[in-house]
Amino acid sequence: MLMADSIGTYLIKRLYEHGVHHIFGVPGDYVLGFDKLLENSPIQFINTCDEQGAGFAADAYARLRGLGAVCITYCVGGFKVINTTAQAYAEKSPVVIISGAPGINERIQHPLLHHKVKDFNTQYKIFQELTIASTVLDDPNKAFEEIDRVLATALRYKRPVYIEIPRDMLNQPGNRDYQWIPQTDVSDPTSLAAALEETVKLINAAHQPVILADVEIHRFGLQQALLQLTETTNIPVADTILGKSVINELHTNYLGLYAGALGSEFARQYVESSDCVIMLGVFLMDLNLGMFTAHLDPNCAIYVMSEKTSIQCHEYQGIRLQDFVQGLLQTDIRFRELSFSNSSKPATSFSPIPDQLITIKRLFEQLNIFINKDMIVIADIGDSLFGGLDLFVHGKTRFLSPAYYASLGFAVPGAIGVQFANPHIRPLVLVGDGAFQMTGVELSTIARYGLNPIVIVLNNGGYATERPLLDGKFNNIRLWQYSRISEVVGAGRRFDVHTESELEAALLESRSHPESFCILDVHIGSDDMSPALQRMTNELAKKIH
Amino acid sequence: MLMADSIGTYLIKRLYEHGVHHIFGVPGDYVLGFDKLLENSPIQFINTCDEQGAGFAADAYARLRGLGAVCITYCVGGFKVINTTAQAYAEKSPVVIISGAPGINERIQHPLLHHKVKDFNTQYKIFQELTIASTVLDDPNKAFEEIDRVLATALRYKRPVYIEIPRDMLNQPGNRDYQWIPQTDVSDPTSLAAALEETVKLINAAHQPVILADVEIHRFGLQQALLQLTETTNIPVADTILGKSVINELHTNYLGLYAGALGSEFARQYVESSDCVIMLGVFLMDLNLGMFTAHLDPNCAIYVMSEKTSIQCHEYQGIRLQDFVQGLLQTDIRFRELSFSNSSKPATSFSPIPDQLITIKRLFEQLNIFINKDMIVIADIGDSLFGGLDLFVHGKTRFLSPAYYASLGFAVPGAIGVQFANPHIRPLVLVGDGAFQMTGVELSTIARYGLNPIVIVLNNGGYATERPLLDGKFNNIRLWQYSRISEVVGAGRRFDVHTESELEAALLESRSHPESFCILDVHIGSDDMSPALQRMTNELAKKIH
Repeated sequence: MLMADSIGTYLIKRLYEHGVHHIFGVPGDYVLGFDKLLENSPIQFINTCDEQGAGFAADAYARLRGLGAVCITYCVGGFKVINTTAQAYAEKSPVVIISGAPGINERIQHPLLHHKVKDFNTQYKIFQELTIASTVLDDPNKAFEEIDRVLATALRYKRPVYIEIPRDMLNQPGNRDYQWIPQTDVSDPTSLAAALEETVKLINAAHQPVILADVEIHRFGLQQALLQLTETTNIPVADTILGKSVINELHTNYLGLYAGALGSEFARQYVESSDCVIMLGVFLMDLNLGMFTAHLDPNCAIYVMSEKTSIQCHEYQGIRLQDFVQGLLQTDIRFRELSFSNSSKPATSFSPIPDQLITIKRLFEQLNIFINKDMIVIADIGDSLFGGLDLFVHGKTRFLSPAYYASLGFAVPGAIGVQFANPHIRPLVLVGDGAFQMTGVELSTIARYGLNPIVIVLNNGGYATERPLLDGKFNNIRLWQYSRISEVVGAGRRFDVHTESELEAALLESRSHPESFCILDVHIGSDDMSPALQRMTNELAKKIH
Repeated sequence: MLMADSIGTYLIKRLYEHGVHHIFGVPGDYVLGFDKLLENSPIQFINTCDEQGAGFAADAYARLRGLGAVCITYCVGGFKVINTTAQAYAEKSPVVIISGAPGINERIQHPLLHHKVKDFNTQYKIFQELTIASTVLDDPNKAFEEIDRVLATALRYKRPVYIEIPRDMLNQPGNRDYQWIPQTDVSDPTSLAAALEETVKLINAAHQPVILADVEIHRFGLQQALLQLTETTNIPVADTILGKSVINELHTNYLGLYAGALGSEFARQYVESSDCVIMLGVFLMDLNLGMFTAHLDPNCAIYVMSEKTSIQCHEYQGIRLQDFVQGLLQTDIRFRELSFSNSSKPATSFSPIPDQLITIKRLFEQLNIFINKDMIVIADIGDSLFGGLDLFVHGKTRFLSPAYYASLGFAVPGAIGVQFANPHIRPLVLVGDGAFQMTGVELSTIARYGLNPIVIVLNNGGYATERPLLDGKFNNIRLWQYSRISEVVGAGRRFDVHTESELEAALLESRSHPESFCILDVHIGSDDMSPALQRMTNELAKKIH
């Protein structure tokens, strides 16, 4: 006879079935029981140094696997993943926050238990502001149902959810008669058919249609459908910052990155002169659109995302993004000759100048030669991201960055989540010195679990992207010997890099040593900036003068 | 003619007048304008590596100075100080959280600005759950008044408050006709007189009265009054974990630490056999009372704290803690002979055994000889705290620890706040390896500003206080070469310590080198525990068996 599930084992079982095979976290007394259940389960618990690292790792894991989870203790743990949960909410990453909590009986007997803030529900109330669904599993009879409700909501809306387990509920048996019935969520067929029909007409009548594909293509796993759509119609594809790498960026049909002055000028002109822009899963956000240097009117476009479908000025109700994209593949959009030739393909070689000091521009040119189809680029915020925009990424969903929420410190712990989500790819982590000082010690976690990212620290002595906005001593940071972190954590290969030839040597050695992480402390001038940031600064300056 | 104040300059002026001469934070675009104002003000802006470090530093600063402040950007900064704000709330530390935010006009024009989560008020709503007062300075006409209202509330209730500045409001002039009128907050004189009269009668009739003094004595600056009270009456004083060091612990009238099995057995027997316990500013919390191993009925005591006054079973309304304590000094409590002799005074010497490996017990015996009146002990959570309970602290408010909220990672950044609050004392930081991995990189900030704490890392390979509760791989942490962090940040003296004689040498060298921080990586056995933790484990085991 099978053991009946307890609340804890049911949660673990359901997470595993949804593809969560790793959970990131830090233990603490209110959650130890759940940590122990995990230890005896097929899900691996991954210890990070700080809860912040666990939160970022779970977010990255969710972006690749479709669902991620972080497991922490009450308040002192939960409140350290508020920021990472906010990021997951803002950028639609389905992360399950699992928090231990004081037992229901303890709460009644002892009003002042450690870790408590205002009242026992303070943490729950706060997470309600940052999640799409949340629950406290305080009723064994409803717990299984609640778990399924909350997980289904995360999967449907691609947003974080919160599950709190009072510790005396963990091993309680749930309702044995309960059985999960998956909700079959579908589009309204009439509405979908009408929208598709109108879309096809507009496309076929257009002179220069173009697909602008963004972050929701990643989240809803529609990269393959997108590829098929462009290949069967020859309508070219541009992506945005958050959407970068929805398609192999070496593909003939790839126009370039559309992000105002931050992106490709070629893509920008093509998109903005198009008479039929098909916007799929696009977030209309300031940073994603080059801080308002992009000019695109969604009211004149075919604009379909998970929460809204509009064609020109009218809206359709009840259409799911995935049904719309899949539906387009069944229509008779005409095949056309490719109407462009994009000259901005990457160089095929790079010749380092031996004693030449490194500039950000040349650094990324060099990296463009270095990256390959077995790598994923993870860019932190700052010129790591802006410089990274000019990289041509080879695979689908091989570029990650929190480019809208823009929290510093994602990239190093993000690499942990990425490598557990897909052990076959090696991360190239691009991180500024400011961001590295926040979460770089998670290289310890990377060493603990034998992961092997190549970490490029852009060392320019400060918050360089803030300097053009308003400079002061507050933008300076202390100079670290970044690569010596490998001596602290007792692992990794380290490189101190000043010149182009040193960079080439370090990159080659990193490639040939996949047995551990590699860290490259790349020294760049404090007033240097990437071509993308330079383009945007120039354009914003034109507006002011 | 004096320049009229803007919202920003008024806030800075008022903070400075309240003793805030340093503000801790990390810059970010929505707060750069305020950072720049600070740079041109008498308040010094202190950059930390991560906002978490700034939050803890501000909390420590507030504990010593009566008010502290942290300054961060919108969401990506604010959400990283949620945990430290929760700690400040739970342990009554008056920290002002100053957050930049999108301008009011921007919010109207552009609904999707970077860093935003659900709506523009999400951060404000969350901080309302964790602060005693909060405001968004969106109305120039009311801004000065709002600033004063919020700061006054922090000072009155010793809890954190939240001030959000939309960036287009920063340089707006405020109401020039506004003038701050300090609220004169007083006790109800009749109620106060009656409570004092009853108290004096009970004390004078008692055989063995005792004062139990806790955290609010620190927060309301009543250490001197407490000293006078015990010296003019000879009623002995015990303190609790959160209250530790309300009085010089070498004072003749000091009984010891009252914290159930965690504290002094002598103090416990004395307090629990007293016929008149005078509880001043006591938090009745699990950890503070030795996880329920203390047995004290506040209904049989004189129990006065800022939020409540009760004598035996009845309550008095409208009495302020500070008026009650000062009032007691004016009464005719009789002077009595000291009724005890406390044998548990610290040893006056310690002889290290040359090749003897260090145990936690002996480590703290050695530290008891080492600490002096020019030092402050800052204990992180874990055996750093439990071991630290047996230290005899020399000065008033010379022991800091988040002993109720119990968040790991306070001690290293706390030392930053402490040294800016009082540059004449040198912190002895006690921190476990787990906590150090969370916030230890703030030694970079310590180096940047030339501070000089002595940092003792208790290196035992894991979350050792969790092991007796429930052990598993999740309680292990990666072994670091902790002291080599000094090579990463390019400062500090470092020691790798295994034996008692190595420890003595390292301590002596640290003392004679006050020009930088010192870090001692102290190796201890993974199953070793402090005498205090051993006492509590034994007692809890007795309850189970």
